Amino acid sequence: MDMFTVMRRNTVLELLEKNFRDKTFARQKVDLGQSLGRVMGQTVFAQENVPAFRRSTVDGYAVKASDIIGCSDAMPAFLRKIGETKMGEGTNLIVKSLETVYVPTGGIVPEGADAVVMIEYTEIFDEEVAIGRPVSPRENIIGVGDDVSVHDEVIGGGTLIKTQHIGALAALGMASVDVVERVKVGILSTGDEVVDIQSSLKVGEIRDVNAYSLKAMLTSIGCEVVYQDRVKDNFDHLQGALQKAVDLCDVVLISGGSSVGAHDMTPEIINSLGEPGVLVHGVAIKPGKPTIIAKNGDTAVFGLAGHPASCIISYKTIVEPFIQNTLLKVKGSSQTVMAQSGFQAHMSSGRDVFYMVRLEGGSPTYTAQPVHGKSGMISLLSSADGYIEIPMEKEGLEKGEYVHVHLFK
Amino acid sequence: MDMFTVMRRNTVLELLEKNFRDKTFARQKVDLGQSLGRVMGQTVFAQENVPAFRRSTVDGYAVKASDIIGCSDAMPAFLRKIGETKMGEGTNLIVKSLETVYVPTGGIVPEGADAVVMIEYTEIFDEEVAIGRPVSPRENIIGVGDDVSVHDEVIGGGTLIKTQHIGALAALGMASVDVVERVKVGILSTGDEVVDIQSSLKVGEIRDVNAYSLKAMLTSIGCEVVYQDRVKDNFDHLQGALQKAVDLCDVVLISGGSSVGAHDMTPEIINSLGEPGVLVHGVAIKPGKPTIIAKNGDTAVFGLAGHPASCIISYKTIVEPFIQNTLLKVKGSSQTVMAQSGFQAHMSSGRDVFYMVRLEGGSPTYTAQPVHGKSGMISLLSSADGYIEIPMEKEGLEKGEYVHVHLFK
Repeated sequence: MDMFTVMRRNTVLELLEKNFRDKTFARQKVDLGQSLGRVMGQTVFAQENVPAFRRSTVDGYAVKASDIIGCSDAMPAFLRKIGETKMGEGTNLIVKSLETVYVPTGGIVPEGADAVVMIEYTEIFDEEVAIGRPVSPRENIIGVGDDVSVHDEVIGGGTLIKTQHIGALAALGMASVDVVERVKVGILSTGDEVVDIQSSLKVGEIRDVNAYSLKAMLTSIGCEVVYQDRVKDNFDHLQGALQKAVDLCDVVLISGGSSVGAHDMTPEIINSLGEPGVLVHGVAIKPGKPTIIAKNGDTAVFGLAGHPASCIISYKTIVEPFIQNTLLKVKGSSQTVMAQSGFQAHMSSGRDVFYMVRLEGGSPTYTAQPVHGKSGMISLLSSADGYIEIPMEKEGLEKGEYVHVHLFK
Repeated sequence: MDMFTVMRRNTVLELLEKNFRDKTFARQKVDLGQSLGRVMGQTVFAQENVPAFRRSTVDGYAVKASDIIGCSDAMPAFLRKIGETKMGEGTNLIVKSLETVYVPTGGIVPEGADAVVMIEYTEIFDEEVAIGRPVSPRENIIGVGDDVSVHDEVIGGGTLIKTQHIGALAALGMASVDVVERVKVGILSTGDEVVDIQSSLKVGEIRDVNAYSLKAMLTSIGCEVVYQDRVKDNFDHLQGALQKAVDLCDVVLISGGSSVGAHDMTPEIINSLGEPGVLVHGVAIKPGKPTIIAKNGDTAVFGLAGHPASCIISYKTIVEPFIQNTLLKVKGSSQTVMAQSGFQAHMSSGRDVFYMVRLEGGSPTYTAQPVHGKSGMISLLSSADGYIEIPMEKEGLEKGEYVHVHLFK
């Protein structure tokens, strides 16, 4: 049945990289509060020292450490209190020898002082403060620029913005950030048997599941679905819809229509729309073998299998890495957990094999259990936490072997 | 300095559970495409068998398996082709003994047939099909309800809707789903030194980082921030703002104002707003000790430390589990990865200690490296992937020891 030559997944990803690495995406400015899940379009350098002034990490007394060497509860050092600093305010006070200033946590440490003694080790008598414990120079003080210094790189371009980065950007005073524009994606569902999900099914019909799963997965990585259509297996209709999608989008996903059975018009239509057309027809993965990889102008076109589980595996292992790595140039995007395989698999299929799995346990180690379901549609989708890969070079998988589980979001 | 009694984190979470488990949230109907990240408010049972008809998993010929027992390439069985079925269409054909019908992948298997022979093992001669390989009954057929049967529970109430669930719900024909209403949250930033993030800082001032990180983290778990304000350390202003927030929200977070230093009016204000008021002042975690847990009417009020790293740890280890487990009753919400500690830590602080870490390696095992930064604000936030916990019962942490890393989103 090898009516097309299959290509290894890694080779496919390299080919995509070669064909699309020069495609550029504009930057756009968005409010910091709207930037979660977007990709940094600029490298952010600190414009100022943080903190900008020396801050105390405790409530206590700012001192010259050399004034209180050797003091103890029994033999306290006595310093003269010349004032206090307040949260949110600067100070003109200068600590001279045998003087001290009260400083709250986070407050500015006055000039002259080089350490802060915690309030617990002090006692106040009128103007005098008795200090019962010595400190080292810089003790309980955060210095100017200790967090970040001017010109430090804080967040690199290509960072996928997560919740913790929002805090870092806020701390730098960035109320808006430059992010990479969203990748525009079109989704075409094809097949005479595919109907709207709200239809009550007639015999032979199946619901357009892929339109929904693909859109959810694309949205979860920050893409924008700008064109969506469902097309019967009709050359002219499919050609018209695909032309529209290619004109509007950076990436077009065609689900269904890529198997060799009845639907071999997809490659022909793709080739009719612009150079270079179909690059690969058939990827050595299981499921997902009949995947088509194509390029029309500077739009990437993917023909994905119609079966929902195959469609998701092709999407997750080819389309998503392509969008994140080649198009958006995201740093460190994939999220995997290690687990021990809860099952054994023997195979020599000549393809990289993917299993959808659910995670069990987790103390200390997760077990990856295969998600059963002969046709693997709803039951697979509703209970899988992610998928594992068994590369074709491996004979199979031992129970208890460690595997990477790529998580769904 | 123990001016308040501290409580273990687990005890705090139990106390919150006891106080808020009866608080209910309405259900709302949302479009399936809008449901990502929401919590299922209904348990979904299959209303129909999937598939609804017997489908072929291959392109091939539907047969009675008993007709072709013992056939081979050398001694093929000959069957009479009486027609074919098409994708997306039913059929009236019935396969009788020594008859066969062509069936495409996904197509309906006609009555009478009990298996499908792959096309590769067949050859067609006019009306006759030569079959070169026997099949077992049910081979290459997905039966009615093999994926899910009527009344099967497909997705439970309380499931956090992820991308893969969208596909499962689409396959069941659910264009809209009942989800739990969003939790309404208010965020109050307090402190005379806290200014808008766009301000150029005067000496002593710090930017309102927590408002942004808290909002991003709340949004990422599907909460809605409906009230946000920044208030100076003034009893009447803070009381007024907190009253408004408590009236509008299910959960109110006050950042800053919970340390014992200058800001001990927060508990007093909370207590002035309604029974029972402050439940806990001080949690045995590090950082995050001065956390306040309170209840006004049926609103949960949390006083979080002003320091951004402490604030995030209190939020992630107390507020987020409370919202997800007690309020939303989400099943299996936390996401952790196992890693080997890349560092050693000795401690006996009498508190559960949290370190922000970044993940390195990952083949096969991640290493959790502590994120350095004395003041731990920007540098911590910009490079942490998550955090680990060292419970107070442990003396410390050995290098190489396995730890759970709780991931940021």
